[in-house]
Amino acid sequence: MPVPPLGDYPPEEFRTEGHRLVDWIADYLVWSLDNPVLPKVRPGDIRSALPSAAPESPASFEEILADFERVLVPGLTQWNHPRYFAYFPCGFSSPGMLADFLSTAVSQQAMLWRTSPAATELEEVALDWLRRAMDLPEGFEGVIYDTASTGIVHALAAARQAGVPDVRARGLAGHASFRIYVSEHAHSSVDKAAITLGLGLDSVRRIPADGEHAMLPGALAEAVAQDRAAGVVPFAAVATVGTTSTTAVDPVAAIADVCAAEGLWLHVDAAYAGSAAILPECRWAFAGAERADSLIVNPHKWLFTPFDLSVLFTPRMDVVREAFSLTPEYLRTAEKVKNLMDTGFQLGRRFRAVKLWTVMRAFGVEGLRARLRDHIRLARLLAEWVDEDPAFERVAPVPFGVVCFRAVPPGVEDLDALNERILGRVNDSGEMFLSHTKLGGRYVLRMAIGNIRTTEADVRRAWELLQGACAAG
Amino acid sequence: MPVPPLGDYPPEEFRTEGHRLVDWIADYLVWSLDNPVLPKVRPGDIRSALPSAAPESPASFEEILADFERVLVPGLTQWNHPRYFAYFPCGFSSPGMLADFLSTAVSQQAMLWRTSPAATELEEVALDWLRRAMDLPEGFEGVIYDTASTGIVHALAAARQAGVPDVRARGLAGHASFRIYVSEHAHSSVDKAAITLGLGLDSVRRIPADGEHAMLPGALAEAVAQDRAAGVVPFAAVATVGTTSTTAVDPVAAIADVCAAEGLWLHVDAAYAGSAAILPECRWAFAGAERADSLIVNPHKWLFTPFDLSVLFTPRMDVVREAFSLTPEYLRTAEKVKNLMDTGFQLGRRFRAVKLWTVMRAFGVEGLRARLRDHIRLARLLAEWVDEDPAFERVAPVPFGVVCFRAVPPGVEDLDALNERILGRVNDSGEMFLSHTKLGGRYVLRMAIGNIRTTEADVRRAWELLQGACAAG
Repeated sequence: MPVPPLGDYPPEEFRTEGHRLVDWIADYLVWSLDNPVLPKVRPGDIRSALPSAAPESPASFEEILADFERVLVPGLTQWNHPRYFAYFPCGFSSPGMLADFLSTAVSQQAMLWRTSPAATELEEVALDWLRRAMDLPEGFEGVIYDTASTGIVHALAAARQAGVPDVRARGLAGHASFRIYVSEHAHSSVDKAAITLGLGLDSVRRIPADGEHAMLPGALAEAVAQDRAAGVVPFAAVATVGTTSTTAVDPVAAIADVCAAEGLWLHVDAAYAGSAAILPECRWAFAGAERADSLIVNPHKWLFTPFDLSVLFTPRMDVVREAFSLTPEYLRTAEKVKNLMDTGFQLGRRFRAVKLWTVMRAFGVEGLRARLRDHIRLARLLAEWVDEDPAFERVAPVPFGVVCFRAVPPGVEDLDALNERILGRVNDSGEMFLSHTKLGGRYVLRMAIGNIRTTEADVRRAWELLQGACAAG
Repeated sequence: MPVPPLGDYPPEEFRTEGHRLVDWIADYLVWSLDNPVLPKVRPGDIRSALPSAAPESPASFEEILADFERVLVPGLTQWNHPRYFAYFPCGFSSPGMLADFLSTAVSQQAMLWRTSPAATELEEVALDWLRRAMDLPEGFEGVIYDTASTGIVHALAAARQAGVPDVRARGLAGHASFRIYVSEHAHSSVDKAAITLGLGLDSVRRIPADGEHAMLPGALAEAVAQDRAAGVVPFAAVATVGTTSTTAVDPVAAIADVCAAEGLWLHVDAAYAGSAAILPECRWAFAGAERADSLIVNPHKWLFTPFDLSVLFTPRMDVVREAFSLTPEYLRTAEKVKNLMDTGFQLGRRFRAVKLWTVMRAFGVEGLRARLRDHIRLARLLAEWVDEDPAFERVAPVPFGVVCFRAVPPGVEDLDALNERILGRVNDSGEMFLSHTKLGGRYVLRMAIGNIRTTEADVRRAWELLQGACAAG
């Protein structure tokens, strides 16, 4: 039944269509297991299957869902498939998905406490639950952003504000050049933040890493000294716990020492690996993080919370507010409260906290730990298989759920080309999806284990496909 | 049933809980009609009703939903209530909500074409549908961001890139001060963007408006001349179509003339009123917008698309890409395609296009027009009632769905205090939610009509409450 001439669906119509959709999703979650992880469409296929202008007349939701299935499902990359091993895992889980539905249904928009007391206060509660589970200090206050890319813009804006207090009013014009230090393996979001903030790409100085891809703190100290001598103003360093290519762990404590000595803002990028801080046996990787000025963790990566939900923790939220708080008359309210709009440039915000709260309750911290431990176990198992097979070599340690390796069968001249062919073959199989990186100029395969539905059988099947693709030459 | 020791709910458990949730939402949508629009909780009530640490053991979704109802529902501000008249309306609709569920379920993350061909290409299709419906030129390419605040950061970053090509590499250090021009009634997101981009609040120069709160283009030209003479570099102007306080319409064509003569980037902020461009009778407000360098419209405000979905249209997307495109090795793919990560600093992105596509199909453009026309009719009806009542005065024209007025009964000395009391009273009634602004230093009530479930009876009831609250003195 299409919508009436005015207004929304009648509630009973929503009920009917909602039940239809839930059944469709339940079926899809099963169906998807036996369908391509990486879709088989070519660029333009979907666009050309759709009309070029919107229809004038209404369609029923049933028709729309049928078209979604026919035209769009073949173009879905299955991020929540158990054999999706590319990039980083996605935080899909059924309880998280249900909570996200709930968030959409209640239409909260928590710019002010008044515009959603529930979303404002649940964000505080859920983030404090997460902070405790990760064993971060009590003084760390949290805020939810959409992505870590947005989070790091805010973290570095706070660093900029702390270093250049008149930047809020007067901007960077007329100032000297500033410098942010990152490992050579840091994520590109730091570069994009530097562009956004008007610091420029040249403000990001990449510090060399050791053989295990971790930043060399001695090299950091040297770079700072060089820059000071050259009249460039150091103001922040980013330590990564779990780099994108290899999940390498920068020595946070040693970097914190340099930051303390030099008066730099220390940001810890734990977007992926931060979730592992809920495991006591992984806490070593976060030693020194208690001295950070800011830290980012993405529950939408490896904590079963559907995209998007990234968290910035900081003991210096006052500086974030100093940079961004600004209340025009039409947003003034009488309450003495925390208004989330003061912690960033985004005014509107979804009720994201309900996803994280639901996930932590649905699994319990114990259940979250069990799942992360299983993913790490599977990653180590794969690492063993790689180590035992002379046709492969592992190229990085495996502290979390990502294994980096490449095929090195004897007698092949162009190993990069071989590994690229292997990647293409396993992805074309439709049975799995893997991505790559480069380390020291060499093409490397990268298998990220962390989706909630991934089992040992999935990892075993992936390894068989990889061995087969290598044997095919 | 709680989750199993490892993995997700079994699909049948998701089905059961999903049906439970749909029934809960259908009931909630009816229940909410007779419950407070603005919740009765006090700051801290919700936080103190929740435990201070996450549970170790799992809970069933049924329990979680029961707690949500008991603890959080009383703290929901009902953005989708038919008598929510505060700020701007929210784009809630049942088809949009169902589409958002679908988006969550399929976990797409469209940073690269490869990571979601469906989301990448549907974004292009749905935005071109919207562009045509709004009668914008063919050369305008669109991109979806979370909010208009994020959109304007990107629009002004593109303007900065166009004006200062070396800013991407070298930043703003050492440059002269830059200037952005906006109406005195422009939204605070422009100021926050100026902070973010390192331009500083001082870079935003507010241009006086006429008696109908529209920017005076002559004053703009003068300000530009003054700044040039003082060595400040003008680089962008923002024209607002539908300001936040009164939905005033800046004269876009005249501002475009100044921008063309002075070489300024013209951004049109139509976050709220842009939806009205689908109505031929409202096109007068967008005359000149075809000459804009960028334009923002928020379907999540007044186009029945659930939050968040804001659109930036620009004929110069190449400049946005020039500013932000950056591909590290781990994100390289072979396809020659449009990758959405190149159009901003946010890498990850939800599959938002499916909401807009669904809404345009579920209502048809005709159905969208009918709803907007009805909201405008209701706003004009309210304006008539205000005009006819000697105890009230209207303080701004009503081009769209917002009416600005204040109580001016004879014999009251402090009219501002009276209007503030009226606001408090009608909001405390629980029957409606209204917000305020200030115009020329006077406290003004602001009633925004645009939620899909709002009917003439709702507007009539609101007016009765306002008259009663005024009579109570």
